[in-house]
Amino acid sequence: MNERAVLPTSTRGVALTRYPEGELQESDFAVREFDLPEVTQGSILVQNEWFSLDPSSRIRMTAGESTYFTPFALDEVLDGWAVGRVLDSAHDDFAVGDYVHHFGGWREYAVVAVPDKDWYSPRRVEVGGGIDSRHHLGVLGPSGLTAWAGLFRVGRLKPGETVFVSAAAGAVGTLVVQMAKLMGATVVASAGTDEKVRHLVDDLGADVAFNYRVAPVLDSLQAAAPGGIDVYFDGVGGDHLDAALLQLRAGGRVALCGQIAGYNLKGDDRPGIKNLFSAIEKGLTLQGFLARMYFDEFDEFYREVAEWLARDQLIFDETIIEGIDASPAGFIGMLHGTNIGKSLVRVTPRTS
Amino acid sequence: MNERAVLPTSTRGVALTRYPEGELQESDFAVREFDLPEVTQGSILVQNEWFSLDPSSRIRMTAGESTYFTPFALDEVLDGWAVGRVLDSAHDDFAVGDYVHHFGGWREYAVVAVPDKDWYSPRRVEVGGGIDSRHHLGVLGPSGLTAWAGLFRVGRLKPGETVFVSAAAGAVGTLVVQMAKLMGATVVASAGTDEKVRHLVDDLGADVAFNYRVAPVLDSLQAAAPGGIDVYFDGVGGDHLDAALLQLRAGGRVALCGQIAGYNLKGDDRPGIKNLFSAIEKGLTLQGFLARMYFDEFDEFYREVAEWLARDQLIFDETIIEGIDASPAGFIGMLHGTNIGKSLVRVTPRTS
Repeated sequence: MNERAVLPTSTRGVALTRYPEGELQESDFAVREFDLPEVTQGSILVQNEWFSLDPSSRIRMTAGESTYFTPFALDEVLDGWAVGRVLDSAHDDFAVGDYVHHFGGWREYAVVAVPDKDWYSPRRVEVGGGIDSRHHLGVLGPSGLTAWAGLFRVGRLKPGETVFVSAAAGAVGTLVVQMAKLMGATVVASAGTDEKVRHLVDDLGADVAFNYRVAPVLDSLQAAAPGGIDVYFDGVGGDHLDAALLQLRAGGRVALCGQIAGYNLKGDDRPGIKNLFSAIEKGLTLQGFLARMYFDEFDEFYREVAEWLARDQLIFDETIIEGIDASPAGFIGMLHGTNIGKSLVRVTPRTS
Repeated sequence: MNERAVLPTSTRGVALTRYPEGELQESDFAVREFDLPEVTQGSILVQNEWFSLDPSSRIRMTAGESTYFTPFALDEVLDGWAVGRVLDSAHDDFAVGDYVHHFGGWREYAVVAVPDKDWYSPRRVEVGGGIDSRHHLGVLGPSGLTAWAGLFRVGRLKPGETVFVSAAAGAVGTLVVQMAKLMGATVVASAGTDEKVRHLVDDLGADVAFNYRVAPVLDSLQAAAPGGIDVYFDGVGGDHLDAALLQLRAGGRVALCGQIAGYNLKGDDRPGIKNLFSAIEKGLTLQGFLARMYFDEFDEFYREVAEWLARDQLIFDETIIEGIDASPAGFIGMLHGTNIGKSLVRVTPRTS
């Protein structure tokens, strides 16, 4: 208990200083020092090693946009997924030195409460034997569960079927492509640069991939899957979804996972979906979902994916941003597609 | 067989003379005399008593619009649902005098082939005991199955839930409202005139109804169902669907049944759906369907609905159009919402 004296009482962290109008800018953020609360009964102090940058956080940067994602408070430290080691614990389930996955990201140190077990509760994780702490933010964490639940639960993908994956070079998309191949599906993928397209085919095993910036999505999709598709894993919305609706076969499914095409736009400026008539005549199902809706299947997901990892059957793509100060630029870059795979911020321990 | 001499060899019928640009006009139709084919082995000759006018026929009046609904050929007699009596039969399952429900509508007499049993095959129907032949076009036919399957299979409506029904005074909507009440749901309905709104509440039992032309749909829906809705039965698309997406509760379902808001519009002029992000954060399911996709449940549907009818628990609303010559105007009127319930054309037997 003597060591308490050397525990940090403040942390560097990232805050939003205003709600952006239109495109998000670096000047909408500030990296500042924040006081840390006391480690009261039932909470833990964590030193973060990594935190992740996730597109859905963009939704929380617009006030009044959503009733389900609470907007971030201005000038307070943001939150998001992170992984680190316990420095101090006032909860029986956590010991100093444990690795934990938790929701106190965008900062160096976090004091997090441990509520009843739910999606946002801190979770002890294993590290070693080929598994790095940052894997729990991606392939073995929220991104992995999103890919797995979207493909196998929402999309009900079956071996031999064809799946179209948009935003395929992103954190979730790179996993969707590989999981679909592992289960024996044909994979058509889209991304926004030729480099990503090559990576999807050469490294991740997509059967066909195209750069959506080169030609209308519908033309590229028809050329890539002339016989149609059975499942569309949608991380984009807009023209991608409209094209998929036309190209889906009777009985096809859409897993609605993200709408990055509209995240920087407000209400009426968002691209409207015009081809839903196609859902009627082909009996299509579109289902929206978030990883947390499949939290009760987390253990099954984890077992299955950990086995793929152990057999070296899954690549965990990542784009690493060095240090908290670079995280606002990294987040904006991710929204514009400069990343491949999971965007992770490496938290550099302070030397003082 | 002697009677063959007096059987008709031609019929009056309705043809489309051109594919309309934009709004459909009466001048796009012609009522003409058409030769009847021979009654060859496996087919029957029917004298129609009634044929129905169905919004989905509008889709077939635009060339190249859909790959699933074949466009009507110009200058040939249209087809659609009809009910009548067998005048001549070259099929063992049908005898002269039988009532049949079949797809040779928009005409006085029809020679129809009897293929393997499918959705479009002629079907022998019972008449009498309170059931009129025209009931088989509506409450006991395609409209009834659409309402039943959309509510109970696609929408998975449960007692105590709240359902929002648009185009509620139409052929399908009037049945959806009543079936939902019969199973113990709360019903919010929208229609396009105050008269329809009164009818929905006073006669059909809707808990709340509103005229969508009076105020923005979202405002009216929020006022009508401040606590949200569980199921949306969509016959409209456009602003109705966008409003419903915002007002649906977590886990809500949308039965996509029709898009009458877009039927007179082409491609890019159609209203785009902007609020699909709401499906992601609430885990909503949108499923398109056509009655024929539930053909294998027809017997179960029929049993259940016939029982409601026998107990006088269902009103079959109808708008009757007198004679084939009035059918083009009746069809256009229905697209503009001048009807209540099923639009039926009474075929007047010729006196000659």
